[in-house]
Amino acid sequence: MEKTINIGLFGLGVVGTGIVSVIARAKNAHAVIRRICVRNLDKPRSIELPEGLITDNPDDILLDPEIDLIVEVVDNAEASYRIVTAALRRGIPVVSGSKAMIARHLPELISLQRQHHTALLYDASSCGSIPVIRNLEEYYDNDLLLEVKGILNGSSNYILSRVFDHGEPYRQALKRAQELGFAESDPSFDIEGFDSLFKLIIITVHALGVYVAPSEIFTYGISTIHDADIRYAREKGMKIKLVAQVVKISPETFTMFVMPEFVSPSRYIYSVDDEYNGVVIRGECYDRQFMFGKGAGSLPTASSILSDVMARRHGYCYEYKKMAYPDRPAYTTDIPLKVYVRYFDTPVTSLLPFQRITEQYTSDENNYVIGEILLSDLIACRRQLSAPDVFVTNITRFFEE
Amino acid sequence: MEKTINIGLFGLGVVGTGIVSVIARAKNAHAVIRRICVRNLDKPRSIELPEGLITDNPDDILLDPEIDLIVEVVDNAEASYRIVTAALRRGIPVVSGSKAMIARHLPELISLQRQHHTALLYDASSCGSIPVIRNLEEYYDNDLLLEVKGILNGSSNYILSRVFDHGEPYRQALKRAQELGFAESDPSFDIEGFDSLFKLIIITVHALGVYVAPSEIFTYGISTIHDADIRYAREKGMKIKLVAQVVKISPETFTMFVMPEFVSPSRYIYSVDDEYNGVVIRGECYDRQFMFGKGAGSLPTASSILSDVMARRHGYCYEYKKMAYPDRPAYTTDIPLKVYVRYFDTPVTSLLPFQRITEQYTSDENNYVIGEILLSDLIACRRQLSAPDVFVTNITRFFEE
Repeated sequence: MEKTINIGLFGLGVVGTGIVSVIARAKNAHAVIRRICVRNLDKPRSIELPEGLITDNPDDILLDPEIDLIVEVVDNAEASYRIVTAALRRGIPVVSGSKAMIARHLPELISLQRQHHTALLYDASSCGSIPVIRNLEEYYDNDLLLEVKGILNGSSNYILSRVFDHGEPYRQALKRAQELGFAESDPSFDIEGFDSLFKLIIITVHALGVYVAPSEIFTYGISTIHDADIRYAREKGMKIKLVAQVVKISPETFTMFVMPEFVSPSRYIYSVDDEYNGVVIRGECYDRQFMFGKGAGSLPTASSILSDVMARRHGYCYEYKKMAYPDRPAYTTDIPLKVYVRYFDTPVTSLLPFQRITEQYTSDENNYVIGEILLSDLIACRRQLSAPDVFVTNITRFFEE
Repeated sequence: MEKTINIGLFGLGVVGTGIVSVIARAKNAHAVIRRICVRNLDKPRSIELPEGLITDNPDDILLDPEIDLIVEVVDNAEASYRIVTAALRRGIPVVSGSKAMIARHLPELISLQRQHHTALLYDASSCGSIPVIRNLEEYYDNDLLLEVKGILNGSSNYILSRVFDHGEPYRQALKRAQELGFAESDPSFDIEGFDSLFKLIIITVHALGVYVAPSEIFTYGISTIHDADIRYAREKGMKIKLVAQVVKISPETFTMFVMPEFVSPSRYIYSVDDEYNGVVIRGECYDRQFMFGKGAGSLPTASSILSDVMARRHGYCYEYKKMAYPDRPAYTTDIPLKVYVRYFDTPVTSLLPFQRITEQYTSDENNYVIGEILLSDLIACRRQLSAPDVFVTNITRFFEE
C-alpha cells in the first residue's frame, strides 16, 4: 500500500480548479488535497468542495505538519514568491506553475532548494502539458544541444491563428482568447511576449545551464501587428508566429530572444495552431525533435502539475547539473539579425542603425524595410520600436530547415 | 570532479560506431569506452580505435571489475539475450537497444533487474532519439492515458514516403533504405511490421503496465502493397502509413495492433515522412501530445543511448510502477475494426468473416472490400491475409481527430 501524498494547494483559479478535478480522477496517484488557500473566501467556485477545505490563511498550509507537498498556482507573482520561498525555507517541497515568478527569481530559488534540501518542480510552467523542462534536464545532453525554439504561448498563438486562418480582427480574437480562459489575466503577458520570455528563461537554464534575467532579453510581441503585415506574410505563403528561441551561435556563445517570425509551411511550427504549443529541440546528433501539445488551459496544465506531484513520490528534483559544467556558453547579443520592420510615420530607417538594408518599400499606406541589424541595437532601440505604428518580424535563419 | 563511467560496449555496427563517436564528443558525460566486444575481430571498421580496445571474448567485459555499465547494441537477438541476462545476473547495469530481444523477454528481464538490484535501460529501443519510454514511465500518468499511436519504424516509413511522394517503385525504395543504413539487416523486421510490434510491446508496458507477447498481437506489414492501393489512397487525398497503436477501448480493456492505415492530412502523423518517427500520446486531460524525431540511424540512436548512460549517473532505473496498479486494463482482441482489404485472386469475402460489408469494388484489375471484422478474426485468418495478392489497411477511428 502506497503512502498518500497530502497536498496543500495555493490558488483556485482556472488551473487550481483543474488540479482538484485531475487529482480526483487519478486514483493511482494516491494524492489528496488536504487544504486549499485562496485570496477571497467569498468568491463563488465552479466546483463543490467539502466544508473546511478552503482557507485564506497561508499558515494553515505552511504550518500544517501533515502536508507533504505544496502545489502553488496563484495568479500573482509576488504572492507566489512569498508562498514558494516560505515553503522552501521550511523544507517543504513545492510544485509551481508561476513562470513569471520563477523566471525572475530562479537563482535564489535554486539556492533555497540546496540550502534547505528540498525541491521545487515546475514543468507545468513551460508549455503546459508538454514535458519540455524534464526532457531538457534529463534527456538532452548539453554538449550536443544547438537550439530550442518554439511557440510557447498558447494565447497569442490562438489570436494569430484566428487572425491568420479565419480573418478575424485582432481585438475580437483577443477577446475570444480571454473568454476561453487561455489568456493570462494581464493580457500584455501574452501579447507582448512576456509569458513566452519567462518560459524561455526557464528553458535556457535547463537547456544550457545559464540563467539570463528578463531585462537583458529582447522581447517583442504582437500587439502592433497590422493588416499590412498579415497581407505581406500571406503573399509570401507564410504565417506570422510569436517565436521564442535560444540558439548556440558558436561553441562558446548563445543568444536568445522573443519576436514574431515569418514561418514557411515547410517548418514544424507552421502547423502549430490555436492554443497549441510546439517546441523544436535541435541537437548535433539527433537533428531535430519536435514536441507538440496543449500549452494552456485548465486540465492540460493540471495534468502537468500531476506529473510533478508523482515525480516527488520518488524524490525527484532538478539537479541543475548543466549549471556546473565548466564549458557553459556565454550569452551574447552581439549578433546580426535579419528583420522586417513595418512602419507608418516613425522614421525607422534613420532611427535604427541597420548594418545593411536589403529591401525597402514605401507607399501611401504603409512602409517596410528589410535589413540586418545587431540584436544589441534592437535592444538599445526598444523604446522606438514600441511606437504603435511599428511592427518587427524576425527573418533570421540560424539553421537550414 | 565527477567519477568517470567505464563502459563495456557490445556491438560495433551502425549504432555501435555512432556510440563511440557520440561519447567522444560529449565531454560533460565523463564516460569512457573501456572495451568493445565484437563477433568478428577481422572485420574492417570505419573508425580508428586504440590498440587492444576490441575483443571477441564477452568475458573480457563481463568479468572486468572496472566496468560500471554495459551498452549492448548487438544485431542478433539471441546473442543480445545471452549478454544482457549474463550482465544483469552479475549485477551490472545495462543499456540496450535490442528491441526484438527486449520485447520477447521483458517479464524475465524485469525480474532479473529486481532480483539482482540492477537496471536495464532501453529508451533507444523505441523511436531512436525520441524519449518515448522515459516520458511514458515518468510523465504520463496511467489513469489518464487513452492511446499511444504512431509511426515507430523509420525504414518502412522511408519506403512509403519514397513510394508515395516520389512515385518510386517499392523494390527500389527498399534497396535505398538499406543502403542508407535505416533498414534492419533482416528487412522483414521493418516491412512486415515486427520492428514496430516490438517497440509497441515495450511502449505498452510503460504506458499501461501490461505485457503482451508478440505472438498474441495482430501484425501486418507493407510488403504486399500495390499500385492499386496507392492510387486508392491518393484519390481520397490520403497516405498509407504503417501504424502501431495501443488504445484503451473501455476503462477495463485495451487493444493493440500493427497495421497499415489510411491517414488524412488533418492528422499529425500525415506529415511524418522519410525516416522520421512520430508518436501521438492521448490523455483524458491533455488531449493529444505529439513527439516527432529521427527514429533510425547511427547518431540519433547513439544519442539516445547516451541519455540512458547519463541517467545511470544518478542511479535511474525503470520502476514499472504501472505493473503494480490494481486496475490495469486487460488486453482484448474482441473488438470490431473497419478495414479495407484489396485482393486479386484470393476469395477474401468468403474467407474472412466480415460482420458487415459496407463497400465492395471489383474490376478486371483489382478488387477491394471495406467492412467490419473482429480483430480476433483477423488474427485467426492471418495466414490467408499473407497471400501475396492481399493487402489490408485499417480505417478504424477510435477517437475524433
